[in-house]
Amino acid sequence: MRLVLASASPARLAILRGAGVEPLVEVSDVDEDALVAELGEDATPEDTVGALALAKARTVAARVAEAVPDGVVVGADSMLWLDGELVGKPAGVDAARGRWDQMAGRAADLFTGHALVQLTGGAVGREVTGHARTAVAFSEPTTAELEAYLASGEPLAVAGAFTLDGRGGWFVEGIEGDPSNVVGLSLPLLRRLLAEIGVGVDALWGAPTP
Amino acid sequence: MRLVLASASPARLAILRGAGVEPLVEVSDVDEDALVAELGEDATPEDTVGALALAKARTVAARVAEAVPDGVVVGADSMLWLDGELVGKPAGVDAARGRWDQMAGRAADLFTGHALVQLTGGAVGREVTGHARTAVAFSEPTTAELEAYLASGEPLAVAGAFTLDGRGGWFVEGIEGDPSNVVGLSLPLLRRLLAEIGVGVDALWGAPTP
Repeated sequence: MRLVLASASPARLAILRGAGVEPLVEVSDVDEDALVAELGEDATPEDTVGALALAKARTVAARVAEAVPDGVVVGADSMLWLDGELVGKPAGVDAARGRWDQMAGRAADLFTGHALVQLTGGAVGREVTGHARTAVAFSEPTTAELEAYLASGEPLAVAGAFTLDGRGGWFVEGIEGDPSNVVGLSLPLLRRLLAEIGVGVDALWGAPTP
Repeated sequence: MRLVLASASPARLAILRGAGVEPLVEVSDVDEDALVAELGEDATPEDTVGALALAKARTVAARVAEAVPDGVVVGADSMLWLDGELVGKPAGVDAARGRWDQMAGRAADLFTGHALVQLTGGAVGREVTGHARTAVAFSEPTTAELEAYLASGEPLAVAGAFTLDGRGGWFVEGIEGDPSNVVGLSLPLLRRLLAEIGVGVDALWGAPTP
């Protein structure tokens, strides 16, 4: 049973590797902005991340179905829900600084949509989808800390301008929910979705580590 | 400002590295069982992990003070509070299986004690201590999943017989609190303790990543 990760995110790959799974990585070329525009302004956060995750998984599934006859494609999309607005990656250093001025000392919700597309006998099979929400409480970095964090470049590459698994971890007081969801791929949700298509986590691990 | 990690835990080292800090690692030789026995049965979870963390940091501080004239030694100790009992690493596969039979589908609290000992001008300086508590809700692994997890060896090496940052992450539904605390070193708590001795996180990072 081969897992195919339809994402370019190094953090999602690291989660899977840390959890004992080496996926094939195949990045989708979904036009995210066009899809979000198509959904319209009334789309909920759950709708938006779910539609993006499914589009990514479908695109990659169609592409790899012949090469991976027995597998599961995983698509995911994360956004931060902050003050009634769904925010993705910041546009630059100034945008990231503005985001932190807004977030510091407060809480926001990280939504990740997940979609599995099964590959069976070289064909695209069942689809299952879900989403998870984790509340994140931010600390208040000092000016020197925030400037050093921005200078590291790390917050510029990620939804919500923070990382839980990197330098940003210093500035997250706590969360309510699943931490892997904040990093971009919820392991317990992925496990439940896999169970829906009859796959246990043990099937992804292969032979035990000696 | 050099950070010295008084712990053999690869998970604690990985947290610091992921958060942009490369510590010097110097493992203490504290007799943990003797110290716990000395504290007596009335010791709270906070007392126990706090005393162990401080003992580790003090031992290492005395040893490295000359070699690291300007630094901070960090000691930490983690335990799981489960059904009114403080549990550390399981004694073997059977103990880990029994622990999971007890934990599955339920919640427990992960306590980590933290102690900083400052090194100034080659001498041991101020001490600051704290502790953090994170609630962890466990899933119910299938028999096949649990046996594969036990066979991986991972749960045998860690307090509470689970990992949040490894294969065990599949079986943690969610947490309330700081995730790095569950892994063994709370970054936001460490940041607050460092602030007490006048050190910002930016001082640990050095030059920005290009």
